[in-house]
Amino acid sequence: MNFELSDDVKSMQSRVRQFIREEVIPMERDPRQTSHGPSEALRNELVARARHHGLLTPHASVGMGGMELSHVAKAVIFEEAGYSPLGPTAMNIHAPDEGNIHLLDIVASDAQKERWLRPLAAGQIRSCFAMTEPAPGAGSDPSMLQTTAVRDGDDYVINGHKWLITGAEGAGFAIIMARTEDGNATMFLTDTDRPGFIVERMMDAMDSCFTGGHGVVRFDNLRVPASDVLGEVGRGFRYAQVRLAPARLTHCMRWLGAAQRAHDEACRYARTRESFGKRLGDHQGVGFMLADNEMDMLTTRLTIYHCAWVLDSGGRGNVESSMAKVISSEGIWRVIDRCVQVLGGQGVSGESIVERIFKDARGFRIYDGPNEVHRMSLARKIMAREDEGAGRS
Amino acid sequence: MNFELSDDVKSMQSRVRQFIREEVIPMERDPRQTSHGPSEALRNELVARARHHGLLTPHASVGMGGMELSHVAKAVIFEEAGYSPLGPTAMNIHAPDEGNIHLLDIVASDAQKERWLRPLAAGQIRSCFAMTEPAPGAGSDPSMLQTTAVRDGDDYVINGHKWLITGAEGAGFAIIMARTEDGNATMFLTDTDRPGFIVERMMDAMDSCFTGGHGVVRFDNLRVPASDVLGEVGRGFRYAQVRLAPARLTHCMRWLGAAQRAHDEACRYARTRESFGKRLGDHQGVGFMLADNEMDMLTTRLTIYHCAWVLDSGGRGNVESSMAKVISSEGIWRVIDRCVQVLGGQGVSGESIVERIFKDARGFRIYDGPNEVHRMSLARKIMAREDEGAGRS
Amino acid sequence: MNFELSDDVKSMQSRVRQFIREEVIPMERDPRQTSHGPSEALRNELVARARHHGLLTPHASVGMGGMELSHVAKAVIFEEAGYSPLGPTAMNIHAPDEGNIHLLDIVASDAQKERWLRPLAAGQIRSCFAMTEPAPGAGSDPSMLQTTAVRDGDDYVINGHKWLITGAEGAGFAIIMARTEDGNATMFLTDTDRPGFIVERMMDAMDSCFTGGHGVVRFDNLRVPASDVLGEVGRGFRYAQVRLAPARLTHCMRWLGAAQRAHDEACRYARTRESFGKRLGDHQGVGFMLADNEMDMLTTRLTIYHCAWVLDSGGRGNVESSMAKVISSEGIWRVIDRCVQVLGGQGVSGESIVERIFKDARGFRIYDGPNEVHRMSLARKIMAREDEGAGRS
Amino acid sequence: MNFELSDDVKSMQSRVRQFIREEVIPMERDPRQTSHGPSEALRNELVARARHHGLLTPHASVGMGGMELSHVAKAVIFEEAGYSPLGPTAMNIHAPDEGNIHLLDIVASDAQKERWLRPLAAGQIRSCFAMTEPAPGAGSDPSMLQTTAVRDGDDYVINGHKWLITGAEGAGFAIIMARTEDGNATMFLTDTDRPGFIVERMMDAMDSCFTGGHGVVRFDNLRVPASDVLGEVGRGFRYAQVRLAPARLTHCMRWLGAAQRAHDEACRYARTRESFGKRLGDHQGVGFMLADNEMDMLTTRLTIYHCAWVLDSGGRGNVESSMAKVISSEGIWRVIDRCVQVLGGQGVSGESIVERIFKDARGFRIYDGPNEVHRMSLARKIMAREDEGAGRS
Repeated sequence: MNFELSDDVKSMQSRVRQFIREEVIPMERDPRQTSHGPSEALRNELVARARHHGLLTPHASVGMGGMELSHVAKAVIFEEAGYSPLGPTAMNIHAPDEGNIHLLDIVASDAQKERWLRPLAAGQIRSCFAMTEPAPGAGSDPSMLQTTAVRDGDDYVINGHKWLITGAEGAGFAIIMARTEDGNATMFLTDTDRPGFIVERMMDAMDSCFTGGHGVVRFDNLRVPASDVLGEVGRGFRYAQVRLAPARLTHCMRWLGAAQRAHDEACRYARTRESFGKRLGDHQGVGFMLADNEMDMLTTRLTIYHCAWVLDSGGRGNVESSMAKVISSEGIWRVIDRCVQVLGGQGVSGESIVERIFKDARGFRIYDGPNEVHRMSLARKIMAREDEGAGRS
Repeated sequence: MNFELSDDVKSMQSRVRQFIREEVIPMERDPRQTSHGPSEALRNELVARARHHGLLTPHASVGMGGMELSHVAKAVIFEEAGYSPLGPTAMNIHAPDEGNIHLLDIVASDAQKERWLRPLAAGQIRSCFAMTEPAPGAGSDPSMLQTTAVRDGDDYVINGHKWLITGAEGAGFAIIMARTEDGNATMFLTDTDRPGFIVERMMDAMDSCFTGGHGVVRFDNLRVPASDVLGEVGRGFRYAQVRLAPARLTHCMRWLGAAQRAHDEACRYARTRESFGKRLGDHQGVGFMLADNEMDMLTTRLTIYHCAWVLDSGGRGNVESSMAKVISSEGIWRVIDRCVQVLGGQGVSGESIVERIFKDARGFRIYDGPNEVHRMSLARKIMAREDEGAGRS
Repeated sequence: MNFELSDDVKSMQSRVRQFIREEVIPMERDPRQTSHGPSEALRNELVARARHHGLLTPHASVGMGGMELSHVAKAVIFEEAGYSPLGPTAMNIHAPDEGNIHLLDIVASDAQKERWLRPLAAGQIRSCFAMTEPAPGAGSDPSMLQTTAVRDGDDYVINGHKWLITGAEGAGFAIIMARTEDGNATMFLTDTDRPGFIVERMMDAMDSCFTGGHGVVRFDNLRVPASDVLGEVGRGFRYAQVRLAPARLTHCMRWLGAAQRAHDEACRYARTRESFGKRLGDHQGVGFMLADNEMDMLTTRLTIYHCAWVLDSGGRGNVESSMAKVISSEGIWRVIDRCVQVLGGQGVSGESIVERIFKDARGFRIYDGPNEVHRMSLARKIMAREDEGAGRS
Repeated sequence: MNFELSDDVKSMQSRVRQFIREEVIPMERDPRQTSHGPSEALRNELVARARHHGLLTPHASVGMGGMELSHVAKAVIFEEAGYSPLGPTAMNIHAPDEGNIHLLDIVASDAQKERWLRPLAAGQIRSCFAMTEPAPGAGSDPSMLQTTAVRDGDDYVINGHKWLITGAEGAGFAIIMARTEDGNATMFLTDTDRPGFIVERMMDAMDSCFTGGHGVVRFDNLRVPASDVLGEVGRGFRYAQVRLAPARLTHCMRWLGAAQRAHDEACRYARTRESFGKRLGDHQGVGFMLADNEMDMLTTRLTIYHCAWVLDSGGRGNVESSMAKVISSEGIWRVIDRCVQVLGGQGVSGESIVERIFKDARGFRIYDGPNEVHRMSLARKIMAREDEGAGRS
């Protein structure tokens, strides 16, 4: 049992912390930020800065220009990046690209890697992951997948409707989940400029931290060569699991950084603003909120570290990442909500970055599986474990 | 003990309900809605519709064209209006005008009423209430008031800085709280086109339900005739209390309507959307949230009714309105937050009105005194009551 | 809408309050109190005092010597009685006798009333209600009823196993729920000294406010004449509903009194005990708890009153009493738990009555249907209402 | 970062787990258990069993017959021991002896160790720690200490009143905190059979897991030789800190084991008991509770491990142990309370061990400093850190 970070990780943590404070936070009020996230121009400038500091795409494989960070190292670094809503974009570790990079590194063929992963890891293009569908399709229950892919000669012809597709607008390529004729799900890679790949519209989202926002996408006889199947036909759900557990965890890491930022802002305000004869933070009603913040962040951080360690140790981490997702998304939400409260009028207005963090963070209890679905899954596993007599006694 | 509503109130409730559904909800996606609230053009159309249906400014005195609704009647009617974010604007019962109308009806001179209250009650102009100041001024602690009013001949010369002033942009007149030379606070009425009344900027707020948004206002040697003092010099805080308890309660009423709307949207979705082989609402994880919503709305509604009855019965209702504010703002928040969760991706995007209600509602735990200030005040009263030996025993 | 109590009710409230403080509270440390509740000797003395003050069994019908209190009147009076753990016993309005009296008043034949209800209402005997069974029988799901009653000549022969039967030890008679050959449930009345009525043992319960504690009862060929069927054969579940909604609500009333008692004790302590340079109650960390207590008690009280009014108005009150049960049991629990915390070491020891109230109250979230069952039932009704298109819109 | 336990610890964990299940749990219904905790006879038998298995007092120094477990090792082992309410007693790692052993190992003179620590570590005698006083003395605020020790020749004469003194009845010796004439606090060692050491009475406590219960103690001119001062005069509060941070943490460890036990019991019940056509655990309303339990235990366990590692690494761990105390006591409380709810009637009766765990555990939010005091302390440290500009930025 050892909670010490390695010197390498601590050193990189310092560099990222400095980078975020000096290069990223000053750009938070850049007018190129839109309600659908940083514009491409803003993204490009941020990415250039990270590249200049050698901090771009640190989680990618060395072959793809990254540092192959361990999960524990990611836990530390991604939290630092998340300290600014723009940090993950700058370092190219934002969703969904971060998870797509991870997935392609593991599953894609060499040719696919050269074509799509290399420019993605270099920050030259963006990508999207097209799985979620409007009713009656696959929402939180992936087995309800409606999008179909029908073999036609050397191609597959894909038809379907997707929404809440993060980063769709402006993405260079997409990973599409569709149901093939075997009844299973299959993943396809496709450039987005192919005929039949249609971004119908941007959705007005509460958050604004994702470049490309969230789009509604339609596939209208989208024709994809069989060679662009990602991995093997019929293994889409399996690959989704490969992608999901770590991607879910990196969400936790980034949001924890956001919560830390909100807390630091709230502490600063509580130290200076006075009311009723004292500084806000000297009122127990406020001070207790700050104390609770630190406890929620501690448990969230430890849970993330633990799950990262399980993954680094070769575990699948399904249970741990479900727990980490629920614990983190609820813990950081309590933190951010308290910060809004401490900041008062500034917390509900653009006077403070916390208002933006608040709006960004609400979706986290829903993204990557609503917490109710994780609880359902955990409960089933508990009952199955009891059935197996594998209880503790 | 009788919870029955009078026939008159029930009849008006039906009319308002129909009006909101038929005339107001269809306008919720009107492009004249801005991030700073309904534009003047949108407001004017909404007001015209309410006027046409005889539903404009129902709480104003009969002399000013209203119906002099009791507080209990307001509880019923304002909840109905709050069912749409545009409803209170349409019926001219939104903050801060609703409270200003109430205050002027009680405190203003006849001349002041003719000049300011009559057009306000008629929906022809809007107003603002300029009390809150940035640090180190009066935020949640009104005794920290920094704005000054110095007598100069027949005038007062006002200097100061205000922010979070709802409806400032576009308001026809303002009620200003300033410290006069006696050290006490005094209220002043002023048209907003006088020299020295400067709306510096609009604040970017999380909510978008208030026409005119929230502004930063500066008074730069604003000269106001002594005859435009509202009520008596030095009684500003007392009048603020006259305004606050009922205004606080009408906030509760309107937000309860918003929570009911969110809940109805969530129920509708839970009835139709399926996952994991059932309708969402047939999963206990969702069904329990809906049940909790109804319980939170019941307790909120009863608390509002009770406080309204105390006010109607002649009580000052300070304790009751503090409690109602805390109970309501936290109860409706839980409801709306659960609705977001039930709606999933739609709950955090513009696909559902609930996303807007969520952003509108967060401020309610802060407006009209942060809940922490109310709890502090309640605790002090409990200790004082114990000191007086006026405990229950 | 009127929250005013009638003069009659206020007058009786005063009398009960005085009775509890002067006659009952002084007996709380009487050594005849046992871990299974007040002993019969203690109960008899308490009942004699209430009888002397004309406060015995006030909810019974006039014909049976009571005052036929309305539900609203009961809400006021039973809360007062609950202020001491011994109060309901003294006034003969404790569970299960209170509910049994109500049920018999409505359903029993005249002969049955004379035989069982009259001495029960007079406080001469006690009764029990034998419905709950150990696994695999009827726990929270009454449809799992295992106890059988088989017709044999003019008698029924009852066999089965019941537990958590409050007041079984020492009860003069029992109401038994058993499954008759038609497959439906039927209620039977029986004296407890009949052969085959066996109280196997007393259960060690967390609470100690119920005379007779909670027993395990076995029916071993218990022979009951057909004339002792309560009401009609096969209508047991229907009568259970008649009993349950009001009985559930009277639980809420009594516990609210207990919460008020705990709160008063906590306030008194917070006013006098000092730490860190202030009285406990002057620390916001404690003061906020006291404020939250008063808010929880307000919403609980209003919810009870509202449900009582629905019942008085002729409503069945199923939804309202389910809500009242959940809201009350959770609200009063929060109150009592906070009081324990405020009282510190005294709160977890016999130094304070609050420790006993805490142990008494935990079961309330389980008794009369666990809150989860009520939430399930409420959720189903919400979905059914949506299906009927009977939503608000 | 490494969450792996060493093989030694894992091996000992297995041994303790087996010991608790085979030797301790079967004695949980032993009639020698009293409402004031295990009787001496029961304790002696339990201790003999642990001694036989080489598991007695494993945290003591090797010189005193222990294994000098690291804090991390204690985290693992004490959790296992806490799985039964009798486990810590059996292994001689219960409060207050566990902490007293730790304190004496560090601070006592060699002579004092031989006289008091050796038999204590051998399980031959018990001890108590006499710090807490009734009002107006030292409760949660140690600076209010009223007990005095006045130098008289070679002795100190101690006068004062203590309560909530765990294990006082039957203790062989006591550590007394008293105020010396320098105004500071000093610790004294004394046998309990000296004149003037009076156990006035046992308090009726909610918990029953501490041998010797909780007593009220009076010092009536208790004469203690100066050589029996523990450590140096005037350093009592400093030593209290030496004792408190680790003792606080071992409380967390033991209670976590209790929560795990409750959870295992609840899971077993949820797997077998049916209602409404399903096993309890297949209802989401129950399944979600079980999932939440596992998440609360995970965060509690990680927090304990982390604090233990800080202590093992030489840190003082004041902040970490305060956080661990609050997080653990609230986390395990939620777990145990949910287990009671899942178990229904059994959860509030002696049918299940969970009822006893529930009553045992409530005090944990109060013992070792009420959580409010820890939150106050954490808040002050946050504000001080902000003042020092030592914030994260």
